[in-house]
Amino acid sequence: MSSFIRSYKIRFEDCDMAGIVFYPQYVLMLHRIVEDWFAEALDMPMSIMHRQHKIGFPTVNLKVDFRKASRLDEVLEWSLEVRRLKTRSATLGICACYRDERRLEAEITIVSVDLVDGDISSREIPHGIRAGMEAYLYA
Amino acid sequence: MSSFIRSYKIRFEDCDMAGIVFYPQYVLMLHRIVEDWFAEALDMPMSIMHRQHKIGFPTVNLKVDFRKASRLDEVLEWSLEVRRLKTRSATLGICACYRDERRLEAEITIVSVDLVDGDISSREIPHGIRAGMEAYLYA
Amino acid sequence: MSSFIRSYKIRFEDCDMAGIVFYPQYVLMLHRIVEDWFAEALDMPMSIMHRQHKIGFPTVNLKVDFRKASRLDEVLEWSLEVRRLKTRSATLGICACYRDERRLEAEITIVSVDLVDGDISSREIPHGIRAGMEAYLYA
Amino acid sequence: MSSFIRSYKIRFEDCDMAGIVFYPQYVLMLHRIVEDWFAEALDMPMSIMHRQHKIGFPTVNLKVDFRKASRLDEVLEWSLEVRRLKTRSATLGICACYRDERRLEAEITIVSVDLVDGDISSREIPHGIRAGMEAYLYA
Repeated sequence: MSSFIRSYKIRFEDCDMAGIVFYPQYVLMLHRIVEDWFAEALDMPMSIMHRQHKIGFPTVNLKVDFRKASRLDEVLEWSLEVRRLKTRSATLGICACYRDERRLEAEITIVSVDLVDGDISSREIPHGIRAGMEAYLYA
Repeated sequence: MSSFIRSYKIRFEDCDMAGIVFYPQYVLMLHRIVEDWFAEALDMPMSIMHRQHKIGFPTVNLKVDFRKASRLDEVLEWSLEVRRLKTRSATLGICACYRDERRLEAEITIVSVDLVDGDISSREIPHGIRAGMEAYLYA
Repeated sequence: MSSFIRSYKIRFEDCDMAGIVFYPQYVLMLHRIVEDWFAEALDMPMSIMHRQHKIGFPTVNLKVDFRKASRLDEVLEWSLEVRRLKTRSATLGICACYRDERRLEAEITIVSVDLVDGDISSREIPHGIRAGMEAYLYA
Repeated sequence: MSSFIRSYKIRFEDCDMAGIVFYPQYVLMLHRIVEDWFAEALDMPMSIMHRQHKIGFPTVNLKVDFRKASRLDEVLEWSLEVRRLKTRSATLGICACYRDERRLEAEITIVSVDLVDGDISSREIPHGIRAGMEAYLYA
């Protein structure tokens, strides 16, 4: 078991009038690490997944604990692991740290869906993607 | 006890490649109804709160259940109520519906803080704001 | 000839660390007034245009003069008129004011395209939409 | 004279219902390359500039030519050069390419301002920043 790790810098666009990260921007960063995990760890960039395979992984549940404020130009280290893997869904644990300080802890549940003519219906996670996810399953 | 109700239209900017609302945009909408509630129901627009009173209400916890996809040009009805009111924090229940269909259920915890010279420390919810919040307390 | 007028409030999400509107947020507002103009003045909501008619109006040129900073909770009045109308494109003049003060002046050129299977190619502006646009042509 | 070059990947959050970059997202990318140029080429990260030096560089004019659509997962190469350098302002030329194809050309004018107690007034570009900018002046 391993975690997927990426670092993202807090940008000017992420900060609010109080000079700290505006929390919807954190949620964008949550999506970014999931997107990078699909592309780089599961070998399934979203462009290929959407256009060629006509599948998607919408988020159906989100829980976030915002522990400490983050500020402009800080580089946060994000890590992602798989907490639960079901036939049609996966629950991911994601946290972001600055040095030794935990800034955010999140849990996201994504569901595998077919994207056909604008319709969305759940389906089994494709075998290749599931195999990739298992390597990040928290033991 | 009453709920605070507002309607927001799904805009082009909210929709992703699959033609449905991209979930971080829903989180922006959660912030919007809280912002409108402060301005219109609690009589405390964020501009006054930040600049004159030097207080803020950052979100420390967020839970969202995304039940059904929403699409461009749908007008969702959002409602907000207070679930728990503590000395320094309030937990809000927010849901969004399209006609009879519940699209999203969320719970947000906000904390009262002093904004002094870029520092952020928790404080009691000011009396006037607390009194306004009580009217939205779910009985 | 008339202008299309809408008012939008500056929200917390629009403001940067200096407490003024972050300029990419102004560009989002430019898109919003164009979107509202299509839906309300041209009777062609983008959802219908995209899904049923398979046409779009991407922006190919943008010029903006940011004259004065705007701040949280100010309600700006936006107005839109058509400056030039060609076979396949329209150039729109848009400005935003706060009371007597002009905050922003912009010019946007949009082009009519067919959206077929992810391909994009320019086409004549459909007759019904063109007729609607003519009513906003600056004489 | 040299150009400042950075590459940014098109993310899911940047794409609209038609599967191409939504143009306000391009404007965010324009801000990002300016931000990275200040931090990495001018040795003046925006966090230091805002908090310690109390100066800012708001954008007062923006012109963009959107030449070709960009799509998810494409990595665009952005380049920035200084076109005009005045006492209080700088005009930057920015373009974004995908392989041999020019996707976007932009010109941005930024003005040096003092940020004091929420007030904004123009000032001379500080000497050290100006010296850094000169190295990117297009000859």
